[in-house]
Amino acid sequence: MNPFLGLIEDDLSRFELRLDQALHADVELVHEIARYMATLKGKRLRPALALLGAKASGPWDERIIDAAVSVEMIHAATMIHDDVIDSATLRRGKTSVNSQWTGQIAVLMGDFLLSRALSILTELDNIRALQIVARATERLSQGEIYEIQISEQTDTREASYFSMVSDKTASLIAAACQLGPILGGADDHVIDSMGKYGEALGTAFQIADDILDFTSDADTLGKPVGHDLREGKITLPLIRALQAASEAARSDMETLLKRPDKGEADWSALVAFVEEYDGVAAASDTARHLAAQGQQCLEVLAPSEARAALELAVKLVVERDN
Amino acid sequence: MNPFLGLIEDDLSRFELRLDQALHADVELVHEIARYMATLKGKRLRPALALLGAKASGPWDERIIDAAVSVEMIHAATMIHDDVIDSATLRRGKTSVNSQWTGQIAVLMGDFLLSRALSILTELDNIRALQIVARATERLSQGEIYEIQISEQTDTREASYFSMVSDKTASLIAAACQLGPILGGADDHVIDSMGKYGEALGTAFQIADDILDFTSDADTLGKPVGHDLREGKITLPLIRALQAASEAARSDMETLLKRPDKGEADWSALVAFVEEYDGVAAASDTARHLAAQGQQCLEVLAPSEARAALELAVKLVVERDN
Repeated sequence: MNPFLGLIEDDLSRFELRLDQALHADVELVHEIARYMATLKGKRLRPALALLGAKASGPWDERIIDAAVSVEMIHAATMIHDDVIDSATLRRGKTSVNSQWTGQIAVLMGDFLLSRALSILTELDNIRALQIVARATERLSQGEIYEIQISEQTDTREASYFSMVSDKTASLIAAACQLGPILGGADDHVIDSMGKYGEALGTAFQIADDILDFTSDADTLGKPVGHDLREGKITLPLIRALQAASEAARSDMETLLKRPDKGEADWSALVAFVEEYDGVAAASDTARHLAAQGQQCLEVLAPSEARAALELAVKLVVERDN
Repeated sequence: MNPFLGLIEDDLSRFELRLDQALHADVELVHEIARYMATLKGKRLRPALALLGAKASGPWDERIIDAAVSVEMIHAATMIHDDVIDSATLRRGKTSVNSQWTGQIAVLMGDFLLSRALSILTELDNIRALQIVARATERLSQGEIYEIQISEQTDTREASYFSMVSDKTASLIAAACQLGPILGGADDHVIDSMGKYGEALGTAFQIADDILDFTSDADTLGKPVGHDLREGKITLPLIRALQAASEAARSDMETLLKRPDKGEADWSALVAFVEEYDGVAAASDTARHLAAQGQQCLEVLAPSEARAALELAVKLVVERDN
């Protein structure tokens, strides 16, 4: 995602500085964990989109820096809670917070980041920005619970998948894209279009992630092929394969999916099934279709370098390999 | 806490109705957990204080109902997360959310409640109400992490205890007390005084809770005497006993506290020490002192039934036995 970062290099520096300040805490242990987290720097996808969205959509409002900080802190909070939930020992190649300290501390630290993030937003004196982020945060956790329900019910419906991804992944990304135009006082149709752009990009982002579960080797992603599948996650490549399969083959696979104690042979059969029915290619098609939709949403904006960067961003998201 | 509830009976009914609506969710599993939670009804201390605070301080603003819902949901979120953290199997005599479902689901459900609570507040169109609640939520989780730090460092300083309690317990109670005057447009000095009242009441409430750990029998509280102590919590009765003890006795106890693998005899020695140096009586004195302080804060309000109820509330909090 490098090509367009030059455009927001200075803004991202101010973002990092403000994030650093936002993670400061009086309680020694909170501060220590926050310091550690700062070393687990992610892709900064959401802040980059927030900054580009602000640049592309109208008069720059410096409050976007703090708004981007808030969104990144919410993202970090969900990562910390996800690691507790999955008992993950690693995060971006380093020891996860729950491993470095305890699950207990990681739960509380996630809560702290979440509430501080919303606290920072209240200082920006823009209720709409707050509404959009608070609502996205709510949808995010609802989407994660929905994902568990889908898994428990072996729900292979396409509509369930897209609804879950919209809540779990796209909502916060869409909010990030809308914050610039909201704070800059852009017209409602611009704010709406940027939301749709973020929704499309966020969904494509998740599909790309789900594809990597089938295509990436262990070295690139740090987890084995079909890892998410083994955790019971029903993702688009599998859904597309089920849609492409014959009635009989689909029925066999759905029976297999519902079997409680699946063994190595079953997992291999599922991965082979997705391969046989070109589930990955079909999911890629959907992601590319969404990318094109996302790019169309940008047409409400006047042409600019920032708009071009957003057009590129959605393309890069679909093509990402990690 | 019954005597003054008649005054807000109708308001509390509307509160329950709105809470019920606020817990509605599209995702089946989220809805199911929310339904279950509704059966784990707590004392409703925070909503009662919010409603009485609104009645006592100025023109009634119906938005206080939703604000009270928001505060109660935040409280519920922290209870759910606390139960995950402590691997508690029971909450108010019923199976805890983490036991009824999983720790994973309980973490996400807490996140959902927290963000929906703040989302509801954004609809009230009052940024100050949002600021005060978001900040309290932030302090709450920070206070819980501080409590762990105090335990790990065997920090027996009175100042650490009061700072931790102010964050962990008093901040959200104080916010509840301030919401009425904030939404009703009361003067700043009224809002400030209500905050101080809530801070005093909240601190007294926590001290009373900490006293119960030493005085209540297993039947009343559902946990053995010294349960919190065994979990490493350093509370006011112990701190006051240490202050009252001779230099030598204090030093012995602090060495004992720092010992990593304490056995039954050690716990008994600690409980006996608190008894010998009248730690409970001294902590009660502090709670009563705080109650009196809290009552003084109410003098900015015109005399009313609601004010009288708030005066009584702080007294009842100190005298509570469960």
